[in-house]
Amino acid sequence: MENMAGMHRSCGCGEVKDNDSGKVLTLAGWVQRRRDHGGLIFIDLRDRTGLVQLVFSPQYGEEAFHKAEDVRNEYVVAVVGKVRERSEETINPHMKTGRLEVVVSEMRVLNKAKTPPFYIEDGVDVDENVRLRYRYLDLRRPEMQRNLIMRHKITHEMREFLDERGFLEIETPMLTKSTPEGARDYLVPSRVNPGKFYALPQSPQLFKQLLMVSGFERYFQVARCFRDEDLRADRQPEFTQLDMEVSFEDQDFILDLVEHMMQRVFKNVLDVDIQIPFQRITWTDAMNLYGSDKPDLRFDMHFYDISDLLRDTGFKVFRNVLDNGGVVKAINVKGDAKIPRRELDGLVEYVGHYGAKGLAWIGFNEDGTLKCQITKFLGEDKIREIGRFCEAEKGDLILIIADKPKVVAQALGELRLEMGRRMNLIDPNEFCFRWVVDFPMFEYSEEEKRYVAEHHPFTAPRDEDVQYLLTNPEKVYAKAYDMVLNGVEAGGGSLRIYQEDLQEKVFQAIGISKEEAEEKFGFLLKAFQYGAPPHEGLAFGLDRLVMLMLHRESIRDVIAFPKTQSAIDQMSEAPNVVTDKQLDELHIKLVTKEDKEKELF
Amino acid sequence: MENMAGMHRSCGCGEVKDNDSGKVLTLAGWVQRRRDHGGLIFIDLRDRTGLVQLVFSPQYGEEAFHKAEDVRNEYVVAVVGKVRERSEETINPHMKTGRLEVVVSEMRVLNKAKTPPFYIEDGVDVDENVRLRYRYLDLRRPEMQRNLIMRHKITHEMREFLDERGFLEIETPMLTKSTPEGARDYLVPSRVNPGKFYALPQSPQLFKQLLMVSGFERYFQVARCFRDEDLRADRQPEFTQLDMEVSFEDQDFILDLVEHMMQRVFKNVLDVDIQIPFQRITWTDAMNLYGSDKPDLRFDMHFYDISDLLRDTGFKVFRNVLDNGGVVKAINVKGDAKIPRRELDGLVEYVGHYGAKGLAWIGFNEDGTLKCQITKFLGEDKIREIGRFCEAEKGDLILIIADKPKVVAQALGELRLEMGRRMNLIDPNEFCFRWVVDFPMFEYSEEEKRYVAEHHPFTAPRDEDVQYLLTNPEKVYAKAYDMVLNGVEAGGGSLRIYQEDLQEKVFQAIGISKEEAEEKFGFLLKAFQYGAPPHEGLAFGLDRLVMLMLHRESIRDVIAFPKTQSAIDQMSEAPNVVTDKQLDELHIKLVTKEDKEKELF
Repeated sequence: MENMAGMHRSCGCGEVKDNDSGKVLTLAGWVQRRRDHGGLIFIDLRDRTGLVQLVFSPQYGEEAFHKAEDVRNEYVVAVVGKVRERSEETINPHMKTGRLEVVVSEMRVLNKAKTPPFYIEDGVDVDENVRLRYRYLDLRRPEMQRNLIMRHKITHEMREFLDERGFLEIETPMLTKSTPEGARDYLVPSRVNPGKFYALPQSPQLFKQLLMVSGFERYFQVARCFRDEDLRADRQPEFTQLDMEVSFEDQDFILDLVEHMMQRVFKNVLDVDIQIPFQRITWTDAMNLYGSDKPDLRFDMHFYDISDLLRDTGFKVFRNVLDNGGVVKAINVKGDAKIPRRELDGLVEYVGHYGAKGLAWIGFNEDGTLKCQITKFLGEDKIREIGRFCEAEKGDLILIIADKPKVVAQALGELRLEMGRRMNLIDPNEFCFRWVVDFPMFEYSEEEKRYVAEHHPFTAPRDEDVQYLLTNPEKVYAKAYDMVLNGVEAGGGSLRIYQEDLQEKVFQAIGISKEEAEEKFGFLLKAFQYGAPPHEGLAFGLDRLVMLMLHRESIRDVIAFPKTQSAIDQMSEAPNVVTDKQLDELHIKLVTKEDKEKELF
Repeated sequence: MENMAGMHRSCGCGEVKDNDSGKVLTLAGWVQRRRDHGGLIFIDLRDRTGLVQLVFSPQYGEEAFHKAEDVRNEYVVAVVGKVRERSEETINPHMKTGRLEVVVSEMRVLNKAKTPPFYIEDGVDVDENVRLRYRYLDLRRPEMQRNLIMRHKITHEMREFLDERGFLEIETPMLTKSTPEGARDYLVPSRVNPGKFYALPQSPQLFKQLLMVSGFERYFQVARCFRDEDLRADRQPEFTQLDMEVSFEDQDFILDLVEHMMQRVFKNVLDVDIQIPFQRITWTDAMNLYGSDKPDLRFDMHFYDISDLLRDTGFKVFRNVLDNGGVVKAINVKGDAKIPRRELDGLVEYVGHYGAKGLAWIGFNEDGTLKCQITKFLGEDKIREIGRFCEAEKGDLILIIADKPKVVAQALGELRLEMGRRMNLIDPNEFCFRWVVDFPMFEYSEEEKRYVAEHHPFTAPRDEDVQYLLTNPEKVYAKAYDMVLNGVEAGGGSLRIYQEDLQEKVFQAIGISKEEAEEKFGFLLKAFQYGAPPHEGLAFGLDRLVMLMLHRESIRDVIAFPKTQSAIDQMSEAPNVVTDKQLDELHIKLVTKEDKEKELF
């Protein structure tokens, strides 16, 4: 094998430009493809910047030609050659450098390569497990290169923006304290403190609030976070947050700040203009109109609450629902009256997955007739009244669900999304931002028979709702906000409680005693006694935001070395077994099958 | 307590400028100090930007005045007031805003504060444990604020620079595979993979090399790393590296790149000009001349090897050393001949700590006489000859150590530093960079009775030394380099082996079998078979570099929430005990005292 001693790359392969014609360049990269053709050898050479065609002939360089006879795909080579324009008929319009080729006078073969298990090109149809096992080869594919290059640019632009606005990036610890609240912690046994454990942080929440107590005023961090939860398709055991916190400002400040940051990042990275300010919608409106706290508003198709139209009806199905605190809601699918009956049956099944016991429909046929299975129960007048209420025109399809509010919200919300997709109402290239504001402060936990904090117990209630904290917790809304992008929660935050008396009331509302609070959050509460400023903050799921920006389906596509749903790194085979000596030093031992059996008896 | 509703800060306290006089500003921050003075109340208000003096009087704002009567140090307040120039005699020249004061018309008390356990000001004499326990208060002190603000700026400038040079920041996993090589890993038990463990990364070394195999060509990361070693004064269980790797370039490229990066960071953050290129010194010269692979070259005082002058002497002490492969070396402490005998005895003791059995001296008195305890053994001629060889002039002091080369290097190296300090030769404001290059490839491990890799086994040997790999490993030097700043290793790196045959030879040289290599580094070696480019990289200890740049004594001063030498976070009390349920889920249990006793019998 040879090396590059004395050679210096002139530019990237994809950077060879028309006006380089005639110049002698040094290039290096991987062999994408080799073709022998009439005494000439052509090689497409690839690096991070793209491809360029090399030409070898004994007359241009005999040694290089003979080496070229032996190279194969993915060999690593460096070449010296003269750029020339291709003849008209050999121009490749699909290639950035397709008008040029490099006539090679010298080549060094820097490394050989075995045949890769899949082609190094976009759109290959490979099992994801193979891609993950050979991640270093998967990452050679141009689309994966682009994903990580864009991720770098997005993060870099965010940092630029926040630095300009006076935010300081401050690193917080990874070896932290385990708190029983929230998701499951990853634990790290301590060698020098036998029997004790660190926890990897689920977020830098407590530390960033402490930094506000410390007077840093504007903090951010691109922070690795960890949650040992069962993994869904878009979850990873470790993920990255853009985490922010600011003192002495109000909600408008931070929403405005984030809007400007997004505008800049989208413009500078994607060259996409996004309109600011983002529209704001209250949590209550979002739930009422779209059945979701993260509505995809690339299309409207909002809910109509037709409960009141149906209170006097004799139709038992609706009456029973309404009499038991349920609601009847509808969506208007414009122009879908022609939907075949078979598809309607499929929709009934679809909403069934989300707990809805049935689905009613009213098709307003172009000829003025109705396609409706409930006319006989409600009468045509009532059906027409519903149609008018739902702004139905000829050709429209009304879909109706009657159930408990939660079920209607979820089932009709999912149905709305499904109909949006079927009717091609969703522009995949659109970026639709919304702020969802005024979240409820508490949620009633059926399991624990008490109210629990919807966000976390440091979230501040709205001033006007403080009076209800101890009497009507369900009436209390929080100074909390989520940024929703295309129906996905991209980030969320809140103003924090910073005053002792209010914090105590909130703990009381969710049934946390002083002692319990002290034990769980002691050091933060203690810090708050020494002059905590008003502060607020939010965090973005960076993996997810990058995924959305790049129109990818999975966050694994925007993470260099992701883990599978079993939390395994297929490439390195982490986690793995460790030695007894290692466990010994950590004062732990494995629980064996026998141990478990013993416990049973 | 009040809030800031409707208020917006005009600027920071320390940002109030002379031409703000007459303007009405809104400010917020912490009460640094309150003074009552002749019916007026003065408050120094502090925020991240500095201090400004507030004035309260019933005539300017009665309510504000009465509130001001009650506020105490570290209360959080927001004020509205008019800026005015102070009268000539009340100007405070030590304060940036000392020519101005703000006459307060409105004040809101945002939060109270208990009396802090120490003053929030620079230079307080507090036990470090108290500072760490109340870290949120310690971080309010201006010098700690400055440390973290500067750390942010340093890191930001590095990112800027590397981005401009085409480097991509790519995040690598924190939950990785444990490898038995190197320092002790922090382990993380896996819940879904019973009996298996992740390791927290000691560095992203393997991943960054894989990213080169993936063709990213230029990578960097500000990466958290973990080592479960017994902590010394300047070590932390988690620390931060600026980690870099680059393909298709040579050593000169990366040294030049780093020099430009340092030049820019020092200029833009500290406004300090540093000269580039940094001088390079081979490892061999550094060891011979200064007894250290990280010499502090803010002063010279190099070693003189006087062994050859002494081979023919009858003085047994030197003869025995020389006959047994030892060396005799000296330093010339200019102008220190007047050193009292008592201090010389102290130096004998000092070098004793580093293993030297003795210390000889020759003082060249101003009157031409000698102060020397070995004249009687060597004769004055020989002493004068040594003096000439060591370039001694009248008034100089020669200090001599004879011992094994390693002992001489360490003891005389430490003595050199000590004499540099005593003679005030070290300018604390100077930044003296050096590259130490051509490190030995291997080190003989007395413990393992074999050669081990000095850096790591992927470090490439110099081309001209490859021939000695299997025959004379001690003759092989590596393409490895360290950046030394003021005698501290600030960073280090190397060119990597990227070709299979060379890698195999190196494994062979250090006695690692193919199977063993496969088991330890399998996935990297496998990746290398698919076309690895020539690559190299280095890493800086960011904490240490920031510490040096800010002239701090401890890296704890440049880390927001550091741990103690027992790896404890004094503030949050991490690590702590966890619940049995948590351990159960992780399939581990604690080894109890009883377990340990059982094992003994």
